[in-house]
Amino acid sequence: MSDRLSVVVVEQDRERALLIVDSLRDAGDFDIHVISEQTGLARRISERDPDVVLIDIANPSRDTLEELTLASSPLERPVAMFVDRSEANLTKAAIEAGVSAYVVDGMRADRLKPVLDAAVARFHMFRQMRTELATTKRALEERKVIDRAKGLLMKARGLDEDEAYALLRKTAMDQGRKVADVAEALVTAAGLLS
Amino acid sequence: MSDRLSVVVVEQDRERALLIVDSLRDAGDFDIHVISEQTGLARRISERDPDVVLIDIANPSRDTLEELTLASSPLERPVAMFVDRSEANLTKAAIEAGVSAYVVDGMRADRLKPVLDAAVARFHMFRQMRTELATTKRALEERKVIDRAKGLLMKARGLDEDEAYALLRKTAMDQGRKVADVAEALVTAAGLLS
Repeated sequence: MSDRLSVVVVEQDRERALLIVDSLRDAGDFDIHVISEQTGLARRISERDPDVVLIDIANPSRDTLEELTLASSPLERPVAMFVDRSEANLTKAAIEAGVSAYVVDGMRADRLKPVLDAAVARFHMFRQMRTELATTKRALEERKVIDRAKGLLMKARGLDEDEAYALLRKTAMDQGRKVADVAEALVTAAGLLS
Repeated sequence: MSDRLSVVVVEQDRERALLIVDSLRDAGDFDIHVISEQTGLARRISERDPDVVLIDIANPSRDTLEELTLASSPLERPVAMFVDRSEANLTKAAIEAGVSAYVVDGMRADRLKPVLDAAVARFHMFRQMRTELATTKRALEERKVIDRAKGLLMKARGLDEDEAYALLRKTAMDQGRKVADVAEALVTAAGLLS
C-alpha cells in the first residue's frame, strides 16, 4: 500500500458523487474511483481492491444496507457509510456487520477526510484484535488436539508424555507437516478405528 | 441498566452544554448530568457511572485528549467525543484508546442521538470481542500450566497422565480451588524447590 490511499466511492447521485470527488481531491492525495450502479457491486469493489470504501446512501432500507455492507466486505477493508437517516437498530446492524464509520446525516465535504481517517484507524485496530483472537483460538485448539493425540499414543504404545510428543514431532518433520496436523489426523483415525 | 440511558456530558462551554442538554431531551429519554470542570473528572464520572459519556472539546491538544480519554474510561463504558478540529494521528490515538465515536467538526444538535447510538453499539461489539479474547487467552494459559503440572506429577510420582490429572482435580476439590490454580501453585513450588 502506497501513501496514496485508493478510495472507491459508491454513489448513485451524480451531483453528490462530484461533490465527494472534489472534496476528497481538496483534502488529500487520493486515488478515487466512483461506482454509480449497484449491479455487480461486490465484484466491482473487489476488482479494485481499494484501501477504503466510501458509501453514500440517502435513506437506506434494512435490505439495502445489508446488501451494501456485504458487497463492500467491511472485514477486509475499511468501509465508511454515510446515510441521511437511520434508526438505532439499523445503526447497530451496520456496526455489528463491521462498518468502520457509520455517519448519520453528516455528509459534508470538509468532513470526509476526518471520517475516512477514523474509519481506517478503527478498521486496523479491529482487525488486529480479530487476528489476535483467531491466533489464540487456533493455539488453544491445537493444544487440545495435540494433548488428545499424545494421550492416544501413550495408551496405545506405552509411551510417556515426552516420548509421545517426540514421536508426533518426528512424524511431522518426516512428513513436512505441522505437529497439530499430524495430531489431528491421528485423532480422526483413532475415532474411525475405535 | 434501565431503558433510560444515563449520559454524562463533559462540556466547559455553558451555551454548548445547554444546547446539548436540550437536544438530548428532544431526542429521547435520557438522564443527563453535565460536568463543566476538568478537576477530578475521572472521579466525577466514575461516581456517576453513566451508560455513556459525551465529551465536547473545541480544539484539543494531544495532552488534553489523553487526559479526557483516560478520565472517561472508554473501555468500561461508551465514550463519544466531539472535537472541532483534529489530525489523522490524534484521531488514531483516540480510537486506539477505545473511544467509541470520534466526531470531527460534526457537533450538531440533531446528530447527537445517532452518534450516541453508534457509540453504544460499537462499544458493546468491541467489549464482546475483548471478553472473548480474554477468555480464550486464559483458557490457553490454564491449559499450559495444567499440562506442566501434570508432567511434574507424572515424573515425580510415576503416574500416567489420567492419574496425574485426577490427582490435581482431587486436590482442587478438597481445597475448594480451581484445577488451574492448584496447577499454578505446583509449578511455582517445583520451580522454587529445584
